[in-house]
Amino acid sequence: MTDHNDKRLPIGVFDSGVGGLTVLKAIREALPGENLIYLGDTARLPYGTKSPASIARYATQATAKLQQQGIKMLVVACNTASAVALQALREQMRPIPVLGVIEPGALAAVAACPGGAHLVLATEATVRLGAYSRAIAARDPAAQTREQACEMLVSLAEEGWTSGTIADAIVERYLNEAVQGSFTATSIILGCTHFPLLHESIAAIAGRDVQVVDSAQTTAVAVAGLLQDSAALNDSRQAGNLRLLATDGVTRFARVGGQFLGETLTAEDVELVDL
Amino acid sequence: MTDHNDKRLPIGVFDSGVGGLTVLKAIREALPGENLIYLGDTARLPYGTKSPASIARYATQATAKLQQQGIKMLVVACNTASAVALQALREQMRPIPVLGVIEPGALAAVAACPGGAHLVLATEATVRLGAYSRAIAARDPAAQTREQACEMLVSLAEEGWTSGTIADAIVERYLNEAVQGSFTATSIILGCTHFPLLHESIAAIAGRDVQVVDSAQTTAVAVAGLLQDSAALNDSRQAGNLRLLATDGVTRFARVGGQFLGETLTAEDVELVDL
Repeated sequence: MTDHNDKRLPIGVFDSGVGGLTVLKAIREALPGENLIYLGDTARLPYGTKSPASIARYATQATAKLQQQGIKMLVVACNTASAVALQALREQMRPIPVLGVIEPGALAAVAACPGGAHLVLATEATVRLGAYSRAIAARDPAAQTREQACEMLVSLAEEGWTSGTIADAIVERYLNEAVQGSFTATSIILGCTHFPLLHESIAAIAGRDVQVVDSAQTTAVAVAGLLQDSAALNDSRQAGNLRLLATDGVTRFARVGGQFLGETLTAEDVELVDL
Repeated sequence: MTDHNDKRLPIGVFDSGVGGLTVLKAIREALPGENLIYLGDTARLPYGTKSPASIARYATQATAKLQQQGIKMLVVACNTASAVALQALREQMRPIPVLGVIEPGALAAVAACPGGAHLVLATEATVRLGAYSRAIAARDPAAQTREQACEMLVSLAEEGWTSGTIADAIVERYLNEAVQGSFTATSIILGCTHFPLLHESIAAIAGRDVQVVDSAQTTAVAVAGLLQDSAALNDSRQAGNLRLLATDGVTRFARVGGQFLGETLTAEDVELVDL
């Protein structure tokens, strides 16, 4: 039986595809000594356009797979799965801690702009679920939140077109759609794990008065805090291991995922698994 | 037991999502008297980034579902599934005829530009499989074919951004990527069922010397020919019925699918089915 208090156990990170690798990257940078295991459910991506019932079923299966491997913490690095299924995954994993990406992002935005106007850029499913609006309102009743679906930003990131005139034009169109009416954003939350790749374009077009909250970074901070609190931090004098699992298309996972992780991957770096 | 020679039986049309509705629309326009049943496997879309083994399994399940409903012909309105699984689906459906979208498109391009240089715009999976190149070479050994993956055109169509500066800039970038080197296209094949929505932009940027082959239209022509040949054409004095089935997200299917079909749909128009 696995002892989930074993510090050497990896942190499990789960996403529908490669997007969560931006979260993994941020965790690695913050906690270089940790062993990490990542599962991308590429056979069933994207979750963003699926129904809540399907998303919850997929997330439960992916979580079970990581649980089998033995992990000391689960990070749900998928905004859609965090919005739909976080509570169910916490029940499933108890007593192992489970962290989503929405709470850290909402907390950071509220801390940066108290009483502010928060614009959440996300997938259709995340927007429809309104989880960011609820998380922000629970912490700061004076805050305003608007959520904007930006599916094209997902494809831009996957295509690797993360800068230049096309990226800028698409970002600008979404920001213009979002600020119609009397809403002027004081913060922009990158509410999809693909969007940190477009951070620069979004920040440049939003202008310097707008705080951009990167939920990959804020999640990494929350992971570090939680591990420290439970005395589960691994020794960081030695670099941690990384295992990458995917449910389909390891070649594509390596090619696109490498951009997200910021290093070159080959298909041999990725293990194909069934859920 | 269903008599598959019954003219009133519907034509089954299958795609991974809403894209095949461009093919359905073309069939409806060509053959207004036919009853039609469409299945979009929205729970598992997109097929374009999945592995061949997964695509073949999904296509077999979707075909079995339409077979249960009773159909007189199956149209595989998905380029990826046509490229991977057409032969297997023909075995599965025998003696009911099965038509893919690749053969009609390849035939039309070869007929329009004998000995020509054909540029196929498609998804990653279709390009990787090289089915258009093989189909064209088999009919016209003097022809040249180049296949270009254009994933962003899929998202443009789904977002409804089918004209304007962003659509034009993205189309132009892909066309520029494709014609590097000494390749000058005489025809462009719309090798993904989403791309007929971008027909105008693609034709305008390609210029008037380039023939644009719309595989939705060419498939409809092939369907009409096959029905006529087997004396299975329904009476067209009365408008045919249309049933729409989807495996997930009927609200989104109705909203996005309506753009593809060219009419307003509501969630009530779409039946949710399990495969």
